[in-house]
Amino acid sequence: MPSYTPPVRDIQFVLNEVLDVSASDVPGYEALEPDFTAAVLEECGKLTAQVLAPLNSVGDREGCVLENGVVRTPAGFKAAFDKVREGGWTGLDLPEEYGGQNMPYVLGIATLEMFAASNQAFAMYQGLTHGAASAILAHGTEAQKATYLPKMVSCEWTGTMNLTEPHCGTDLGMMRTKAVPQQDGSYAITGQKIFISAGEHDLAENIIHLVLAKVPGGPEGIKGVSLFIVPKFLVNADGSLGERNALSCGKIEEKMGIHGNSTCVMNYDGARGWLLGDLHKGMRAMFTMMNEARIGVGMQGLAQADVAYQNALAYARERLQGRAVTGPANPDGPADPLIVHPDIRRSLMDQKSFAEGARAFLLWGATLIDRAHRAGDADALGMISLLTPVIKGFLTDRGFDMTVQAQQIFGGHGYIEEWGMSQFVRDARIAMIYEGANGIQALDLVGRKLAQDGGKHVMAFFEMVKAFIKENEGEEALKADFLDPLKAASKDLQAAAMFFMAEGVKNPNAALAGSYDFMHLFGHVCLGLMWARSARTALAALRSGTDDAAFYETKLATGRYYMARQLPMTATHLARIRSGAEPVMALAAEAF
Amino acid sequence: MPSYTPPVRDIQFVLNEVLDVSASDVPGYEALEPDFTAAVLEECGKLTAQVLAPLNSVGDREGCVLENGVVRTPAGFKAAFDKVREGGWTGLDLPEEYGGQNMPYVLGIATLEMFAASNQAFAMYQGLTHGAASAILAHGTEAQKATYLPKMVSCEWTGTMNLTEPHCGTDLGMMRTKAVPQQDGSYAITGQKIFISAGEHDLAENIIHLVLAKVPGGPEGIKGVSLFIVPKFLVNADGSLGERNALSCGKIEEKMGIHGNSTCVMNYDGARGWLLGDLHKGMRAMFTMMNEARIGVGMQGLAQADVAYQNALAYARERLQGRAVTGPANPDGPADPLIVHPDIRRSLMDQKSFAEGARAFLLWGATLIDRAHRAGDADALGMISLLTPVIKGFLTDRGFDMTVQAQQIFGGHGYIEEWGMSQFVRDARIAMIYEGANGIQALDLVGRKLAQDGGKHVMAFFEMVKAFIKENEGEEALKADFLDPLKAASKDLQAAAMFFMAEGVKNPNAALAGSYDFMHLFGHVCLGLMWARSARTALAALRSGTDDAAFYETKLATGRYYMARQLPMTATHLARIRSGAEPVMALAAEAF
Repeated sequence: MPSYTPPVRDIQFVLNEVLDVSASDVPGYEALEPDFTAAVLEECGKLTAQVLAPLNSVGDREGCVLENGVVRTPAGFKAAFDKVREGGWTGLDLPEEYGGQNMPYVLGIATLEMFAASNQAFAMYQGLTHGAASAILAHGTEAQKATYLPKMVSCEWTGTMNLTEPHCGTDLGMMRTKAVPQQDGSYAITGQKIFISAGEHDLAENIIHLVLAKVPGGPEGIKGVSLFIVPKFLVNADGSLGERNALSCGKIEEKMGIHGNSTCVMNYDGARGWLLGDLHKGMRAMFTMMNEARIGVGMQGLAQADVAYQNALAYARERLQGRAVTGPANPDGPADPLIVHPDIRRSLMDQKSFAEGARAFLLWGATLIDRAHRAGDADALGMISLLTPVIKGFLTDRGFDMTVQAQQIFGGHGYIEEWGMSQFVRDARIAMIYEGANGIQALDLVGRKLAQDGGKHVMAFFEMVKAFIKENEGEEALKADFLDPLKAASKDLQAAAMFFMAEGVKNPNAALAGSYDFMHLFGHVCLGLMWARSARTALAALRSGTDDAAFYETKLATGRYYMARQLPMTATHLARIRSGAEPVMALAAEAF
Repeated sequence: MPSYTPPVRDIQFVLNEVLDVSASDVPGYEALEPDFTAAVLEECGKLTAQVLAPLNSVGDREGCVLENGVVRTPAGFKAAFDKVREGGWTGLDLPEEYGGQNMPYVLGIATLEMFAASNQAFAMYQGLTHGAASAILAHGTEAQKATYLPKMVSCEWTGTMNLTEPHCGTDLGMMRTKAVPQQDGSYAITGQKIFISAGEHDLAENIIHLVLAKVPGGPEGIKGVSLFIVPKFLVNADGSLGERNALSCGKIEEKMGIHGNSTCVMNYDGARGWLLGDLHKGMRAMFTMMNEARIGVGMQGLAQADVAYQNALAYARERLQGRAVTGPANPDGPADPLIVHPDIRRSLMDQKSFAEGARAFLLWGATLIDRAHRAGDADALGMISLLTPVIKGFLTDRGFDMTVQAQQIFGGHGYIEEWGMSQFVRDARIAMIYEGANGIQALDLVGRKLAQDGGKHVMAFFEMVKAFIKENEGEEALKADFLDPLKAASKDLQAAAMFFMAEGVKNPNAALAGSYDFMHLFGHVCLGLMWARSARTALAALRSGTDDAAFYETKLATGRYYMARQLPMTATHLARIRSGAEPVMALAAEAF
């Protein structure tokens, strides 16, 4: 069975040393002293490694079972969920007035990485609840907040988001679910929603569905979509549970992975719902949830990559096979461990340099969210808005690739279910799809975010990279290994953006044909930047005389690997982008 | 449920137009007239599309079940297997004297692509038998051939290959299975083998296991390994089945995919076996099977990519979602089909240009095998020996990636099992692992094949590319789109080979750290070459006034896409290779 070692030391390195969070002027960050965050992360690490990780393969094997309208989650999930709730983990970064702990998001997502790495299917129950609670927090009336939030913050009640219908996922303007106004101010919701994660289960006493639907007579298409709160059990005035609402789970999907999470077909048969936010502004309200969810999904890409890497590393150290080409490394044994072989090393370094770079990127992104929300910083909001599709698309694509590489190290043992590597691959696969498939992320990035506010945010990104390089250019130990590659990669990114500006005006397809490559190009530059920053930090630590030199030396070597072996991808992405729309769009649809 | 359309037209294009097989001087190729090959391929296409494809998801769902030592294959497999046998498909390219049809291998593998695409798990039963029969053909005594081959050519008996043991897969020198000589000239085989595909099943009346084992007292390690024929039922002198041999299936593995094929733990408890080939030369005999199997596995990468692409294309045409950025393409419908969107197009073109390029590469490789075996051409043997790891490693890695891209087009529907896209991904995954994991292919390529015969074969490859470019350089319609990119990519490949030569002498790790990238670089150049050749052929057809201009125009556009958007990868691979061993090997094993 796979094991999981929470990456507390590395998270602490990013939080305290690279980002220096407790020195930040963002309200609430003063609490993030190293001792405090260490205590939180250690505690979370224990819970996830000891309680959730052992349930990961149980969830995969047993899956969720629908019987007589009731969904049974895998053995042990309920007890573990109670433990998570009792530990107060579900409301870590939610407001104190509703029972949360009001910690910054950056600490919240650091803990969520461990939840997702130890058991992604399990973590989704609380993750979706967090998203639904955020939407109610941002758009609900005081009464709605008072009714739902205390129970959702504690996960006594869980939440869902209901967007997709059988005939529409991305294009929600075609939605058919109806919400008919009732005399008492509520709405009668009728329609079918599919792919509803955690739509029905036995972990909580109530489930608060957030459902997109159209009020008849409203505007056509996406502009006529509203968001509704539709609880499984109606809530009485005193907060107790009332009658069962007219909604049900019609089916659980058979999926490639995340078997421990129930993916439901939800049928609403005149269910009672209450408008959340403004009429016909449902997409706006839903996007509160969605933007958060996209960061969270990007995190899952990193999380699966990291736990898969940990297990591949352990296997590479233990499995004896072949001899090092430079002479036996384990002369007394029958063979050398896999890790002596250069190609195994290459794969492990790919994985390690991705996971650590991605973690730094994600946590940096989380500080931007905190700065935007807690300090009302519009520039930070613009920057994270730009980076959200990169975090989601790049981290999940590359995260999946890394789980495949980790599985490969096990040879045939990776393909059988016994070792658990297949599950990491199968679970990681969904993150490329849900909360907006990665092609949609690329479209969002190039078609919307790039030109947002007159292109101000992408210019700010370039300026930031430039400033970092300038600030450190006197540093010989960084120059050739970090600053030069970062400069080259950033130049490729700028050239791609220029190409889009020049060509996209004439032909929007010229930009969109390169959107996916641009998303990856951007992701590599972000990881390159984070590695350069991490290297500077590591170097400073080494020079100041640290007790933990091995850690910082390893950081530098891992960063050098990323810069030398991964960053050159930017040139290929740029070449593809510059080939423009013609090769992509040359064939008529009939000609394929 | 997914569908499968046999790519007969495209195979015919490669066979008749690009490779012009019937004009070849290779003995037996004179039979490969277009009418004849068309008839064979059409017939095979019917069988695979109508009989095997519908069983693909059945096999995935039901899997194989072990009860009381007997393995039950999925419903319908036995009847379909009988149909395949009765059609004479299993011996298409095996000798007439044993009941085969003695057709060239190139035609055999063209049919095998359809078998693998329609149902990979099913096709493995016959594929492994073919490999085992080839080994007996090459290394067996006349008596052994007479005893086993007629039944194996017809697949009345199937075959297996038994290499892996729990503690060794790649490093077979550590093998523990023993073969103790008996007075009657047979051996008593004792040991456990794992991951034995088709090790036990109900499709055939006997199973002929080829088992690697060590005869006590022989040389240490890999030099003391011999190969044995170990039938499930002993064969009487008159060819009838005798007593059951002392071997059994101990377990069927739970796997990520290819559920329809039984992957067995095989226990040999003093089973009677007979030496195949020379004592202690088991690896040589096994490699007869292995080399063929590696080409066949490369073919599986292409096959899964093609069938997944076909279904993604159909979905992209039918699924209505969003509007084309350049204006509605389906103004009367509620939305445009997915295929209008540039990023969907990019993905489809990636898949299409891979599948067709890979098919040309594979079939060209098969003609080299025929030339080597049927015409005794040592240069052809050297060339295919060089290309075998590229075919295996590159086609399976990229083939898997393409199934993932195909699945992605379905969004959430790709992740649920109902649409069958998950199965293509899960089934394609094994091809990167079995018959030598792809890292081993890269090692074989760089550590062995590159320098084979003084580097003669790789030089011949470069010469061939150069000659092709020279021969066509006056052709303006090919120059910018095909010849220039091919030249650049080939230059990258040469530079990488030069780097290995210069650095590898000093430090073998410098070559091995770049081996995986080299395998991919080489693969891209091969596909680039095949696309350039295909483009020349298509251009000639268009100029000569064809009835099928649309086909050739599409070929050219698809080839241009590959050259413009895929071939630039060679630069990144070269950059990685040139970074050498240092970034890869910098960390001590303990430092990870």
